[in-house]
Amino acid sequence: MRNSRRGAVDPFIVMDVMEAARKAEEAGRHIIHMEVGQPGTPAPEGARTALMQAMASEPLGYSVALGLPALRARIAQHYGERYNVDLSPERVIVTAGSSGAFLLAFTALFDAGDRVGIGEPGYPSYRQILRALDIVPVGIPTKAENRLQPVPEELTGLDLQGLMVASPANPSGTMLDHVAMSALVGACAEIGTAFISDEIYHGIEYEAKAVTALEITDETYVINSFSKYYSMTGWRVGWMVVPEDHVRLIERLAQNMFICASHAGQVAALAAMECDEELLGNLEVYRENRRLMMQGLPVAGFDKIAPPDGAFYVYADVSAYTEDSLAFAEELLEKAGVAVTPGLDFDRERGGHTLRFSYARSTDDIREGLRRLEAYMRDRR
Amino acid sequence: MRNSRRGAVDPFIVMDVMEAARKAEEAGRHIIHMEVGQPGTPAPEGARTALMQAMASEPLGYSVALGLPALRARIAQHYGERYNVDLSPERVIVTAGSSGAFLLAFTALFDAGDRVGIGEPGYPSYRQILRALDIVPVGIPTKAENRLQPVPEELTGLDLQGLMVASPANPSGTMLDHVAMSALVGACAEIGTAFISDEIYHGIEYEAKAVTALEITDETYVINSFSKYYSMTGWRVGWMVVPEDHVRLIERLAQNMFICASHAGQVAALAAMECDEELLGNLEVYRENRRLMMQGLPVAGFDKIAPPDGAFYVYADVSAYTEDSLAFAEELLEKAGVAVTPGLDFDRERGGHTLRFSYARSTDDIREGLRRLEAYMRDRR
Repeated sequence: MRNSRRGAVDPFIVMDVMEAARKAEEAGRHIIHMEVGQPGTPAPEGARTALMQAMASEPLGYSVALGLPALRARIAQHYGERYNVDLSPERVIVTAGSSGAFLLAFTALFDAGDRVGIGEPGYPSYRQILRALDIVPVGIPTKAENRLQPVPEELTGLDLQGLMVASPANPSGTMLDHVAMSALVGACAEIGTAFISDEIYHGIEYEAKAVTALEITDETYVINSFSKYYSMTGWRVGWMVVPEDHVRLIERLAQNMFICASHAGQVAALAAMECDEELLGNLEVYRENRRLMMQGLPVAGFDKIAPPDGAFYVYADVSAYTEDSLAFAEELLEKAGVAVTPGLDFDRERGGHTLRFSYARSTDDIREGLRRLEAYMRDRR
Repeated sequence: MRNSRRGAVDPFIVMDVMEAARKAEEAGRHIIHMEVGQPGTPAPEGARTALMQAMASEPLGYSVALGLPALRARIAQHYGERYNVDLSPERVIVTAGSSGAFLLAFTALFDAGDRVGIGEPGYPSYRQILRALDIVPVGIPTKAENRLQPVPEELTGLDLQGLMVASPANPSGTMLDHVAMSALVGACAEIGTAFISDEIYHGIEYEAKAVTALEITDETYVINSFSKYYSMTGWRVGWMVVPEDHVRLIERLAQNMFICASHAGQVAALAAMECDEELLGNLEVYRENRRLMMQGLPVAGFDKIAPPDGAFYVYADVSAYTEDSLAFAEELLEKAGVAVTPGLDFDRERGGHTLRFSYARSTDDIREGLRRLEAYMRDRR
């Protein structure tokens, strides 16, 4: 049967690692999971309770395409409370995870052949979704001295119709502060480039508070999700804030491409927004895990790392050990019983000598993982 | 801010009717909903119970991209039980509703500029999703004598890379029998056209059993969902069966474009497959509603209708009353208190003189809706 050219996207290498880890576990081995990009915790209890109640009293059919009005209003309120940004609920669009938001944003903003800049290293699906939509992803190799984030000078000559940034970023955990993000927003406005801000790791930050692009401009698409801080990955509920004159455009696309985000997920998400006590408890676990990682990884020989500002990842330069990060990840899984993600997912050019370590799981797991890495790397040298 | 050409899809006219109906209700009026394309019933009780249990015991994080293995296996088993088709679970892909399946199928099969045939009248989102992906929808005006389904002769000269059919169809409820579907499958195979079969209304049929394209060929994409027969619209879980050599392609796209379908929804869907007793009860309601519609609509003056084989819609030719079905639908809402869908959503050319009546809601509602239509139309003449 025929297939398309645009469908031939790259595999997600982390998925191969996860599958190898699963097989090792099936064979009876114990594996520490530092490859996965998701919390080990469930949706907050309040969210689950709210859904149980709704299931008993409502049919939970399609919601309207832009999302439950109460959820849109609560998200708008959140921007007031957290960022002191006055936001109309009309501009908030509930999506099928941030994945759904990317599909809507890219479709609404770009035509086939348009060019969209993405910092490398970065979340691999940006590139793949763009390609699947016949849009051209343009990798911008970021520099360590810029904390692995793009800077305005790097946009020159790229002929971009869009720029996608993430802060805190995956895999590095680094953030754009107000000055750095303003500079990018300004540079994009000057050359008519759409500025898209992925803020999915907001709320998981350790030193300074993350800046939303909405503090700087209304002329942006901001994408966020209930997956990370709210610990609801599998529920597939995210949101997007768009300029007022883009709401109808997005509504039509959402009606046709998605009908709506999961109604059950939306009910749970709305309640999750009142569960900060439990969620801040999760955050304290990440904070302690991060402290252990910052201490333990260098002891294990992974000392070329930058302290992450947010998210739950450490991105390490392992060029002292390998130029083949996939083989090295396989070795660590096989020999040390620790699953990690090779950098090739995040940076096609330089990812051969980088690894991403996730510390999203329990502190006991992190301690044991670090112990295994230290022991194995000590013997390996 | 910039926006794309391809994002400029048509509005969903039924949504405007739903919004007008909502406003009328807000203003205190009582409206009978014959416009909505969804059951009024919730997910079956067994599905909700299974989810409650899972929420208490599992984190429900991301599932693997192709879906929970148990759900894929259960769906494959269903093809054996219902159609006597031996299907490998490997070929079953769990999607974010049938909407997610369309996005995956169209992306995997077609490049920008490719042409895909769709019968008119038909589900409007086929056309809009294709356009959003820069694929060219090619409307095929179907004939009443072919029960509003396309036939092989009509494909000649259209230069199609794909053909999308639906059986039972929306809005007509008509089906392709084994002979008619085989003819289309054969014609497509001859000219190298991908054959996509939307089978979302399977299970809701009144005379003969619907035929799946998998009874005829393995070289097809079959799309289905838990929304209709399983009464789970808002849960956004569907599935797709693809040729064996397309599974990896779809897996990579699904990983990047969706990550996974709602895990909670998948848990509920798996349990719903054991709830036939409750679901057959729903079906008996549709059957009785259909009987009332077949009897009552002609009395009200809507006599140019074909008995639907399946689904829960009646598509009526109202050219005796209007060439402006949108204005006529507004009139019926305003004057009769009955919301119906103008045919323009389903057929851009001829939908000005057609309406879709849905009988998915309770039998009491159908009785009252027919009573109102009869009374209003009697006075109108």
